[in-house]
Amino acid sequence: MTAGGDIEALIQMMARLPGFGPRSARRAVLQLVRKRELLLMPLADLMQQVAVTVRECPRCGNICSGPLCDICLDPKRATGELCVVEDVADLWAMERGGAFKGRYHVLGGTLSALDNVGPEELRIPMLITRVEEEEIREVILALNANVEGQTTAHYIADQLEGQVRLTSLAQGVPVGGELDYLDDGTISAALRARREV
Amino acid sequence: MTAGGDIEALIQMMARLPGFGPRSARRAVLQLVRKRELLLMPLADLMQQVAVTVRECPRCGNICSGPLCDICLDPKRATGELCVVEDVADLWAMERGGAFKGRYHVLGGTLSALDNVGPEELRIPMLITRVEEEEIREVILALNANVEGQTTAHYIADQLEGQVRLTSLAQGVPVGGELDYLDDGTISAALRARREV
Ligand SMILES: [Zn+2]
Ligand SMILES: [Zn+2]
Repeated sequence: MTAGGDIEALIQMMARLPGFGPRSARRAVLQLVRKRELLLMPLADLMQQVAVTVRECPRCGNICSGPLCDICLDPKRATGELCVVEDVADLWAMERGGAFKGRYHVLGGTLSALDNVGPEELRIPMLITRVEEEEIREVILALNANVEGQTTAHYIADQLEGQVRLTSLAQGVPVGGELDYLDDGTISAALRARREV
Repeated sequence: MTAGGDIEALIQMMARLPGFGPRSARRAVLQLVRKRELLLMPLADLMQQVAVTVRECPRCGNICSGPLCDICLDPKRATGELCVVEDVADLWAMERGGAFKGRYHVLGGTLSALDNVGPEELRIPMLITRVEEEEIREVILALNANVEGQTTAHYIADQLEGQVRLTSLAQGVPVGGELDYLDDGTISAALRARREV
């Protein structure tokens, strides 16, 4: 230990964050220590505060610090469209896109017989209830384009069939995507969905 | 803002850490929120504690939480060798190497006329005093092998000449280093310092 107990412990805990390893955690901690007043103290305060106030929005599963999240509280977002995503990171990604004006439902994962994840673990019963109670016209299944995501999408579609319009995101080549870097499934899907130009 | 005030503020502050950008900061904050008890709360507590206790070792410039750092406190490290480094990251790198058994002197940067960094800003007067007072036999100049580092090394060598043995780290090809990836200066230096095999 070259850096003393607390600092070494801080480095080890930072190294557990995604995107960090021991080397980058050391660099980050040095930066924090150098900018004690400007960075370390405000960051420590913010973390304390978030640790106390953060919770899951009881309606949609987004994270928030009030009784409901900003999106559920915003009456302008009661468009009758509900976008179903696997986790909060996907919700944030959709929001960055800026194209979706409705509300979300965060499942918290995908169905998995192997991991004992059934519909009850995924807020799927709550989704059914919301569709009935919130005058939802369309459910957009924005799940990942892998086996787990698509299995979960099919299960939800079966549950909601006939009650609501069900859609999913279009598959294809990402904007600016180079074919070289795409997996074969994406290329095949884009080919099947090809259009006249 | 999709994530509420505090959480958004936390993401923005995390994004200022070296190695992090907005995307990785979002992922890290989500992970923190998901592991509130296991990660967010202990990390917030550790940061608070480090923010209160961290200081610069008044003797060598290492960071520590006591009156002197672990290395200055350890009597076994009074070997008469003093290793001069630019910053604490370099001290940690030397310690990971594990080969150096003496003590350190952290300059806190390099001399720079452009940025108005003179000897007084770099703990150089304190280095001269330590060499006189701590029975130092050898000063190892472990400064970076760039113009600033070498200018600073020459200045220090001038100040200490005749008082103490002065050495610097050997230059050459890093262990496991591929020549392809080295800059020309390193290759030239390694060639000039070549040995019989
Ligand atoms: Zn919500
Ligand atoms: Zn020290």
